Amino acid sequence: MSSRRERQHHRRGQSRRREVDRTTIKVQQPVRALPLYELLDEEGCDLIHSEAMKVLSEIGIDFYLPEALEILKEHGAHVDGETVRFDPALVEEYISKAPSSFHQIARNPEKSVQLGGEHMVFAPVYGPPFVHDLKRGRREATLEDFQNFIKLAYLSPYIHHSGGTIVEPTDEPTATRHLDMLYAHIKFSDKPFMGSVMSRENAQDSVEMARILFGDKEIEAQPALISLINISSPRRLDDRMLEALTVYARANQATIITPFILSGAMAPVTLAGTLIQQNAEALAGIVYAQMVRAGAPVVYGSFMTNVDLKSGAPVFGSPESQLALIAGAQMARRYNLPFRSGGMFASSKIPDAQSAYESVMTMLPAVQSGVNFFLHAAGWLENGLSAGYEKFVLDCEILGMLHTYVKGIDLSEDARAMESLRSVPPGGHHLGTPHTMERFTSAFYRAELFDYNDVDTWTEEGSHPVSEVASRKVDQLLAEYQAPELDESLDEQLQSFIAKRKQGLKG
Amino acid sequence: MSSRRERQHHRRGQSRRREVDRTTIKVQQPVRALPLYELLDEEGCDLIHSEAMKVLSEIGIDFYLPEALEILKEHGAHVDGETVRFDPALVEEYISKAPSSFHQIARNPEKSVQLGGEHMVFAPVYGPPFVHDLKRGRREATLEDFQNFIKLAYLSPYIHHSGGTIVEPTDEPTATRHLDMLYAHIKFSDKPFMGSVMSRENAQDSVEMARILFGDKEIEAQPALISLINISSPRRLDDRMLEALTVYARANQATIITPFILSGAMAPVTLAGTLIQQNAEALAGIVYAQMVRAGAPVVYGSFMTNVDLKSGAPVFGSPESQLALIAGAQMARRYNLPFRSGGMFASSKIPDAQSAYESVMTMLPAVQSGVNFFLHAAGWLENGLSAGYEKFVLDCEILGMLHTYVKGIDLSEDARAMESLRSVPPGGHHLGTPHTMERFTSAFYRAELFDYNDVDTWTEEGSHPVSEVASRKVDQLLAEYQAPELDESLDEQLQSFIAKRKQGLKG
Repeated sequence: MSSRRERQHHRRGQSRRREVDRTTIKVQQPVRALPLYELLDEEGCDLIHSEAMKVLSEIGIDFYLPEALEILKEHGAHVDGETVRFDPALVEEYISKAPSSFHQIARNPEKSVQLGGEHMVFAPVYGPPFVHDLKRGRREATLEDFQNFIKLAYLSPYIHHSGGTIVEPTDEPTATRHLDMLYAHIKFSDKPFMGSVMSRENAQDSVEMARILFGDKEIEAQPALISLINISSPRRLDDRMLEALTVYARANQATIITPFILSGAMAPVTLAGTLIQQNAEALAGIVYAQMVRAGAPVVYGSFMTNVDLKSGAPVFGSPESQLALIAGAQMARRYNLPFRSGGMFASSKIPDAQSAYESVMTMLPAVQSGVNFFLHAAGWLENGLSAGYEKFVLDCEILGMLHTYVKGIDLSEDARAMESLRSVPPGGHHLGTPHTMERFTSAFYRAELFDYNDVDTWTEEGSHPVSEVASRKVDQLLAEYQAPELDESLDEQLQSFIAKRKQGLKG
Repeated sequence: MSSRRERQHHRRGQSRRREVDRTTIKVQQPVRALPLYELLDEEGCDLIHSEAMKVLSEIGIDFYLPEALEILKEHGAHVDGETVRFDPALVEEYISKAPSSFHQIARNPEKSVQLGGEHMVFAPVYGPPFVHDLKRGRREATLEDFQNFIKLAYLSPYIHHSGGTIVEPTDEPTATRHLDMLYAHIKFSDKPFMGSVMSRENAQDSVEMARILFGDKEIEAQPALISLINISSPRRLDDRMLEALTVYARANQATIITPFILSGAMAPVTLAGTLIQQNAEALAGIVYAQMVRAGAPVVYGSFMTNVDLKSGAPVFGSPESQLALIAGAQMARRYNLPFRSGGMFASSKIPDAQSAYESVMTMLPAVQSGVNFFLHAAGWLENGLSAGYEKFVLDCEILGMLHTYVKGIDLSEDARAMESLRSVPPGGHHLGTPHTMERFTSAFYRAELFDYNDVDTWTEEGSHPVSEVASRKVDQLLAEYQAPELDESLDEQLQSFIAKRKQGLKG
């Protein structure tokens, strides 16, 4: 970096250090007060672990990047061509270097998030090349769509993260797309966001922009980026993902190491076999990250469902994916690592009943089983090929409910309400008691878009399915949206960086 | 009964005794292999228990039936006018007389069900005066609708029970309606069913018809009826419910004692207060049943959600109702009693995304928390005012998934698939491995009505929302339906009993 920019960072660092001080961060994300739901006993977890160790030590994982193979070799892994094998002791040694919990900073420090333990982060859908809404149907996603979803995520109190590639802005050149996407996250939201993983250069650009926004020391101390490193299951990490992972780990930025598995295709058709493979692959990526830089924040990721054996297509919301998710969370905890999984997954193409059934079938077990980072928590449709506008705001209603759900039950004397139980006569009602009146505005979570009217009122209002109500809500939110303030000089620096990089990438 | 009928029963008893022998009953209902999900620790359960004991011993429950007050007094309860108070030791004494598990017989013995432990029974919606389908919209329910839903429940492998008042056949006279409903359950299905609770006479008719169908001794040994006794919360049991409960308990027929609670209206606005009240009320009903006949099969019931404090209307699928359900299941287990709760509840009026989100939000925690009897497991719409045809078959898809879900994860050597993990190269695929091919037809649960096609195929087929697919499925099922065989002489006896009773009820 230029010395001019260093000086600027230093000045901004002065005023910003205070902001990222943990003691002043007001975490608004939900903290699970509920007990964990677990499926496997200790013996079961040990079995998955020991079989995964056989995969790592005997079968091996392929790494398609010479630089990564060098690093792995230097740190004691057995490198045979592109296939890498790990002794169990080496795996345990490097896994133990990863933090069990960490903080990701946001430009609004009140929106910084904690990753790990009982903390939960809900982030938008990631990756769809298409968008869907009721008025215009399905179409290719554009930068405008990308910005719109950032705005919707910014406006929801139940989304804690701006996410990453919410949709692929297919109207922008591939080489420079990531710059516009990063800028949009910074400009249109003040929540934490994700880095680009398409190449080494994209990852470096992401880190540079985070440095401009937060300062060098700040992002070194606590990550400003979390990025999704998918493993190309079975048993391989491709060059682009490895380049990005290497850049991020070196810069102490967080990564989510996620085997991308459709059981029956990229892994055995059985859950046990799939879990063993997933565990081996996630650990291989995490060990590598720790070899690049010990202590670099990493998340144990799981993206697992099954194929439809009739068509070969993925099936979302399946019972098998729920079971694997719950067991996966247990494996991550076994290694003291934050866990990413869950999401409002659906195979349905539209925000109909199928999409809703499927979404809750995945999301609820994820909340109960201790997932920390929920990518795809809103907007997912059509096996992830499409991001739905209405689906996004409808999913947010369930996320709101889950904020209440994870608080559990208050058993205090006050909550036990024995005086009310005594004073209301048989057949009487509690609506008017002092105990109820005191809690009138706060007692129950109420989904804003769901209809609780009687059928006559609902009919008079037009008998709208909830997707139509959601459509109007999307329009209203986007019309009323106001961008959070962004320091003008920071904005200029970011724009100038982007202009310079675009020039370079064209040439 | 006449001696002629006694003789017939005896003959039928000969051949039927074998059928209800537990050792030959093929239970097709799902048995939960998953661990329980629990919220409260032992201290929390003790607290709900001890506060409920205060409600029972100090505050009291009203019983609006002189006969019941006599029975309660005789057995040691403190009766003061219509208010009854119970010493904690008396409660414990009578609760302990109730069986922790029991069998309900069906006329097809393979469809008899076990109530209690890890066994789960999914039964249709109960009580709506209206029906809804896509073609005809919302309308008053008729006997034809009632029969149609029995047929749909009969045809689903994921519904284990024919239920009770699936809808109210409003085109039939109130006084004789129950006879037509009972006959329809017997004629159009061979699954177990519920008795009428509208009055003492209706309950007696239900028992008589069960006697005709199964024989006196048979239903004395194992119940042929299970009936829903709602408690008119707060703190009262009305005369009709008490009459029915008394008849059923005397005849050793099963009852589900269910406080009907909208938190904030019929109980305190807090979950702890609601749980205390629910526990006191359920126990009062169960103690009474055991005083009528020690050992009579009873189920601890919970029907609890909250009101929308803005409108006073009920809210289904709320996070509060989930939490109360899970804690309720723990209380039932504390007393070693089977538990009824859950269901595919929705406030939505139509089978849209709202109805599906709400349904799974209640149903999934119910399955995890150890509910045994799931009333309303299919078809519920509009706060229970309407039974949806499409909703019914869509809910059944989720019930099918839950059958797979509760099996948990197979960790056997075979399921771990280490040979496949070894043989498939990095980037290869598992679709063609011997391990996959052996499991090709059975590996994953596949929802029949959900769309897993790619978007082009889905579009070519008409871009149908899943509710339209369900509508066609309903038509197909009802067109293809064939009634299970019913012994001609039994059928005649039932019809003759009904004719005689109808004559009596007219006169």
